[in-house]
Amino acid sequence: MIRSEETICAPTTAIGGALAVVRISGPQSLNICEKLFRPLDKSIKLADQKGFTVHFGEIHSECDVIDEVILTIFRAPHSYTGENSVEISCHASPYIIRKILELLINGGAVSAKPGEFTQRAFFNGKMDLSQAEAVADIIASKTSSSHKIAINQMRGGFSAEISSLRHELLNFASLIELELDFGEEDVEFADRKELKAIITRVKELADKLASSFKLGNVLKNGIPVAIVGKPNSGKSTLLNALLMEERALVSEIPGTTRDTIEDTIVIDGIEYRFIDTAGLRETSDIIETMGIKKTHEKIDQASVILLIDEITDSAEFINKRVLSIREMIGESEKRLIILINKTDTASEDRQKDLERNINLEDKETLLFISAKEKSGLDNLRFRLSDIVVKEKLSSDDVIITNIRHYEALIHVSESLERVMSGLIDQIPDDLIAIDIRQAIHYLGEITGEITSDEILGNIFRNFCIGK
Amino acid sequence: MIRSEETICAPTTAIGGALAVVRISGPQSLNICEKLFRPLDKSIKLADQKGFTVHFGEIHSECDVIDEVILTIFRAPHSYTGENSVEISCHASPYIIRKILELLINGGAVSAKPGEFTQRAFFNGKMDLSQAEAVADIIASKTSSSHKIAINQMRGGFSAEISSLRHELLNFASLIELELDFGEEDVEFADRKELKAIITRVKELADKLASSFKLGNVLKNGIPVAIVGKPNSGKSTLLNALLMEERALVSEIPGTTRDTIEDTIVIDGIEYRFIDTAGLRETSDIIETMGIKKTHEKIDQASVILLIDEITDSAEFINKRVLSIREMIGESEKRLIILINKTDTASEDRQKDLERNINLEDKETLLFISAKEKSGLDNLRFRLSDIVVKEKLSSDDVIITNIRHYEALIHVSESLERVMSGLIDQIPDDLIAIDIRQAIHYLGEITGEITSDEILGNIFRNFCIGK
Repeated sequence: MIRSEETICAPTTAIGGALAVVRISGPQSLNICEKLFRPLDKSIKLADQKGFTVHFGEIHSECDVIDEVILTIFRAPHSYTGENSVEISCHASPYIIRKILELLINGGAVSAKPGEFTQRAFFNGKMDLSQAEAVADIIASKTSSSHKIAINQMRGGFSAEISSLRHELLNFASLIELELDFGEEDVEFADRKELKAIITRVKELADKLASSFKLGNVLKNGIPVAIVGKPNSGKSTLLNALLMEERALVSEIPGTTRDTIEDTIVIDGIEYRFIDTAGLRETSDIIETMGIKKTHEKIDQASVILLIDEITDSAEFINKRVLSIREMIGESEKRLIILINKTDTASEDRQKDLERNINLEDKETLLFISAKEKSGLDNLRFRLSDIVVKEKLSSDDVIITNIRHYEALIHVSESLERVMSGLIDQIPDDLIAIDIRQAIHYLGEITGEITSDEILGNIFRNFCIGK
Repeated sequence: MIRSEETICAPTTAIGGALAVVRISGPQSLNICEKLFRPLDKSIKLADQKGFTVHFGEIHSECDVIDEVILTIFRAPHSYTGENSVEISCHASPYIIRKILELLINGGAVSAKPGEFTQRAFFNGKMDLSQAEAVADIIASKTSSSHKIAINQMRGGFSAEISSLRHELLNFASLIELELDFGEEDVEFADRKELKAIITRVKELADKLASSFKLGNVLKNGIPVAIVGKPNSGKSTLLNALLMEERALVSEIPGTTRDTIEDTIVIDGIEYRFIDTAGLRETSDIIETMGIKKTHEKIDQASVILLIDEITDSAEFINKRVLSIREMIGESEKRLIILINKTDTASEDRQKDLERNINLEDKETLLFISAKEKSGLDNLRFRLSDIVVKEKLSSDDVIITNIRHYEALIHVSESLERVMSGLIDQIPDDLIAIDIRQAIHYLGEITGEITSDEILGNIFRNFCIGK
């Protein structure tokens, strides 16, 4: 897995745009670049240049000039990877990028694998594993909330605390194991009271982090919303109204592609994903009422259900529909918002009548809107953003978003649970030591102090090339 | 049009990838960045830093850290635009890019218009207009031939020569106009012999450059190829065979999207574009024979026509078809390649028989292939690349690819034609002076020594944002 004697290269920006950056990292970075780079100041030798210096010049292939470029030198350990590195900023022509990579590879570099730059940063101690994982999350972040969680994690986040608690546990494990060596002498190196205290602290942290995963996952991946309604109730009009404003806003920012926000909206920095809206939007309102099974599937995937009825529907009819959705929701924590659409076509009395006669439970909200006239949409947005109870997301809170971390934390908590009851029941120390070791192992997996090729493979495989 | 007192900003890399670069240029670049950048070494003030220096630090928005970035400073005149500039290399998250732009704009920068960085480089004398235009061509270049032409042009190419000849012409124009001032005194400041010599030189250059446009255009935009054949003759199999190898090759290069080479192949650095192949590839061989009108349209757009027949077709049948294609080609310089497909299903004698009995004219080639077994494809590639007579593209040749330059050169040539015949016919000097001035005007339009908001608007509108 590790091949740090090799010098790797890859484009690190996307195809397109005006400029592209090709990154080179490894022991031969400067020597390889020397062969293809002709500095404007011909007296300069790259190998003699300091880190954090910038050089203007040409990339050439024999007689041909490939491009005029800006080349930046980073020297170990002050680079992203911790190795000698070079970044070449060139024109973003597919031909030029290909040619520069070709020249680098001919010069002795090899193509970087996905995530290999970050993997080297991890191996060279520039970051621990959970920080490395956060790099990919940062790149993928589209909203302020997903960004905030990722950047906190990249900048240390919870891993420093986990690492220090793990070392305290390690000390206790060693002391207990030492006691075992003394066999019958009945010594007690590890203070049981202190041990209980530290175990309590670790377990509390593990439980707190594990319980943040649900919120973290929602903030990272967006909140799934299902729109349910009969034909012509205005589902697609509502969706378009919500999306359209969003798009106008986003398309003002240069370079933003509209495709990336297809059928998602961002409210207060949190993303809401509309489930399975392709059909809705393509065929407008004319699709048939979805069957019970299809509706059930949609509701299963959603955290929020928007049930759309019309102002002309009777309270009895709406109550019946709410009841059937409620049955599908069951005991889960899904929220239901009942939208009464087309308020523009009826009187206020009608609205008051429905308000009186529609029966709501907790976690259910009744809103009146006119999707066509875009009225009531702010109430809907407010209600949606209110659902992600915002108190939960104070800026100091550490939130985990990674299922690998979540699973490790659950294992930590279970092991420590056994340690605690073992201490109370006074079970033999060798059994207690095994459970402490297990907790230590899983804590180490989070930070990467304990790792395996399989774990690393799984993590870095999902990175893009060039990172 | 010019707003150089403003500081502009834009992302200069595409959305996607691992890293993104945001570029800032203008008088306030350093001051604006100072507000949002917190260097690792807190004692550093950006405004005090030299050009070509690199700084690691954080972009922050009040208390929030937006990203850890590398910031590079360029100082006037040693920057792309010739102004003070900063490049911020950040993680390529849509949120981070948006946030950095927002902070820059709040700090006093404005969004850069398409091509505005390059436009500033032009106004600040970093490059002439034809060089600026070449920047866009470089970014768009996908093949070695289109890249070579663009980079030659960006690095000065023909514009230095045009500019110097223009100045010689200017001298003569002034001398002739001086003679006119002396009215009846019959002085002759401008040596008519020298004038004829310089006009001949300029006209020869203009004609040579103008005549290179056709080749240049083809090299820049690719050579259009039409595939014509009856259903089941193997059109789509051939296309897939040609494209597939190409794709396998291209997809080895990280970050290359396959979409960009949809239905084009590159042979010897030159691109061949297959016209209207969507139908072919979607429906495989089962589409109906195209009508005469459709075939005519395809042939009209193409430089090369591939007519596909089968080895089991009779020579008589094929000759008839060749004849009808030949009629559609008419007097134009289009090339016809007759491909006899499915050689795997017949004997060699059959092939020899067809070779003897199919009648070819100049510019027509008969090739035998088996698209299914991929045999004969190298011959086809060789023949295609042979068509762009390669002797024309020696490395010293200057080739123009820009229709704006082409049109200006035609005007130059026409004006000088009139000057020459005027000199021979001894028409009045004031009329000759007008034509010289016109030639000077059009030469100036190429290099940008003469320009207008309209010309500049047309040119830079087609640039991407961030360049």
